[in-house]
Amino acid sequence: MTDPILLTPGPLTTRPATRQAMLRDWGSRDPAFVALTAELRARLLAVAQGEATHVCVPLQGSGTFIVEAAVATLVRPSDRLLVLVNGAYGERIAAIARRLGRPVAVLRWPEHRPVEPVEVAAALAADPGITHVALVHCETTTGLLNPLAEVAQAVAAAGRALLLDAMSSFGAIAIDLRAVPVTAVMASANKCLEGVPGIGFALVAREALARAAGVSPSLSLDLHEQWRGFEKDGQWRFTPPVQVVAALVEALRQLEAEGGPPARLARYRENLATLLAGMRRLGFEPYLDEAVQAPIIATFRVPTDRPFRFAAFYDALAARGFLVYPGKLTEAETFRIGCIGAVDRRDIERLLAAVAEVAGAAAAA
Amino acid sequence: MTDPILLTPGPLTTRPATRQAMLRDWGSRDPAFVALTAELRARLLAVAQGEATHVCVPLQGSGTFIVEAAVATLVRPSDRLLVLVNGAYGERIAAIARRLGRPVAVLRWPEHRPVEPVEVAAALAADPGITHVALVHCETTTGLLNPLAEVAQAVAAAGRALLLDAMSSFGAIAIDLRAVPVTAVMASANKCLEGVPGIGFALVAREALARAAGVSPSLSLDLHEQWRGFEKDGQWRFTPPVQVVAALVEALRQLEAEGGPPARLARYRENLATLLAGMRRLGFEPYLDEAVQAPIIATFRVPTDRPFRFAAFYDALAARGFLVYPGKLTEAETFRIGCIGAVDRRDIERLLAAVAEVAGAAAAA
Repeated sequence: MTDPILLTPGPLTTRPATRQAMLRDWGSRDPAFVALTAELRARLLAVAQGEATHVCVPLQGSGTFIVEAAVATLVRPSDRLLVLVNGAYGERIAAIARRLGRPVAVLRWPEHRPVEPVEVAAALAADPGITHVALVHCETTTGLLNPLAEVAQAVAAAGRALLLDAMSSFGAIAIDLRAVPVTAVMASANKCLEGVPGIGFALVAREALARAAGVSPSLSLDLHEQWRGFEKDGQWRFTPPVQVVAALVEALRQLEAEGGPPARLARYRENLATLLAGMRRLGFEPYLDEAVQAPIIATFRVPTDRPFRFAAFYDALAARGFLVYPGKLTEAETFRIGCIGAVDRRDIERLLAAVAEVAGAAAAA
Repeated sequence: MTDPILLTPGPLTTRPATRQAMLRDWGSRDPAFVALTAELRARLLAVAQGEATHVCVPLQGSGTFIVEAAVATLVRPSDRLLVLVNGAYGERIAAIARRLGRPVAVLRWPEHRPVEPVEVAAALAADPGITHVALVHCETTTGLLNPLAEVAQAVAAAGRALLLDAMSSFGAIAIDLRAVPVTAVMASANKCLEGVPGIGFALVAREALARAAGVSPSLSLDLHEQWRGFEKDGQWRFTPPVQVVAALVEALRQLEAEGGPPARLARYRENLATLLAGMRRLGFEPYLDEAVQAPIIATFRVPTDRPFRFAAFYDALAARGFLVYPGKLTEAETFRIGCIGAVDRRDIERLLAAVAEVAGAAAAA
């Protein structure tokens, strides 16, 4: 039996060469691994053209860990964070800030609607106490793309700092730090970079990070100290997941070989277009308006014109070698299918053939 | 060129089958991975005979992350933690507690001396405000083994809770939770369990963990919520490093096949005995008295009877396929050589042959 194809928001299907990069043991303080870490940090910074202004700080753990570390390190107890929310990952940032005891305000939109830059500008004008704004670039809850450039412009115009959760967009959807004012971009290895899970990273404006000594209440989740560690001797402060790092470096080399983020975005767009057209043909309605749909993950409404059980649908697709994803919406019964990872149009076409086969079975179950 | 042998405190040399377990992509919410996580948690609990009293909570990140999560979750702001310190990892626990704003007291011994249970009992009698005690089982700073059974008895007799950092002992040196009163044992994948780095875990007394809702100031480093997540649906709250989990499960199966912790301890003891005898023969003096030396990692004094540069010694051994480790002592010039990982007496003998070759070169450098 071959491995299943993962059509999920990550962990996702990686290339064989990425996984094979994990077959070696590395001494975490050995010069060879120090060089690998330096390559990792340089390549991640280059993906967003941040070399002149930002520094790259990788961190052990999942995407949530790097988001928490960025909030803990950059938002002081005397600051106030405004979180722009139109899905579960925005809510999570607000929950992180509350748990840390940081003053937090929330501006919400419905899950199918993008953040409105004009409303952000108005909120910032109305509340001079807000120092930082947090935005989720692509809300994996639905697959919606928020208008980064316009929100960043509104935040910068008001003189506040923007923290961008780019977890599921980084590596495919362009983020140009020379053109878009963002204080910190947080993402992880196992989304559009097509690495394996185990580390996240932040690209942080050097000046903001330099001022953040001693702010984090956590020794582990302190991006200032983590950065100082890398600057001191090129080593990680605490044991890094060496194989995960090696896999991500290999994945970043492959990203470059593929043609960088624009080429990857084109492949994902083709995956999405194939998926949406095929699923519509099979009677599944996308949840989002196509104008706000990112080519990352698509949400489909559970059919109401026939009996349908997601669990049976999932199992039948899994038996055919495809893992899809449950929904996460509060207001509608849905499921999700990812467009990212080492998959292309032909994989999506094979998935669609499988969906055609099992839709009847799922209906009957 | 073959991979180097890592004679370090971890990441260390793993078996090929452990690394090959990382060649698959797993859906983190798929039933196959839920089953793998259940096997992981059950096997870890069984290593310490904790099934009747404790629960296993794995966590993303390095060993420091799981230690911080345990302190953050189990020690309340109204509690006070006494940290027993005779090395850098004890100091780190105190630093974690201070950063979290938890009241902390420290009792120190010299780095070459074990923690004294009688002094611990006296400190607890003198200060009724102390609610928790933290001990490092094997201090990797030197390789010293602290007297767990006696300290645990003193702490339990005084009605306090013991947090045990068993990072570099778990899987080799026996910890029997049926016989030794410990509230939480923290360890990680990449030491005596011979997995790869990327997750830690805590075995926590079920009753203590059940009372710890909402105590941690961190969403990511909250062992109560992490545990509730596993209990709810068997899934990790946040994206797990799936390949690291798969490698650890494979490593735990191999631990069982080897004969469990007693067989592993016997192999490490043979490694240590071979190492100490051989290094003495070559004129290197161990830092610790053999009575307190754990068979995990040995510290050697830098020779003073001849010129010796560690950097040159390291490079020359690395060129021959062996990675050793720098010292971490505050009071003496030392270096370290590990005895753990997928290595046996023959590897140590090959290392000794290499040391014999290069000792002259290092002296000359």
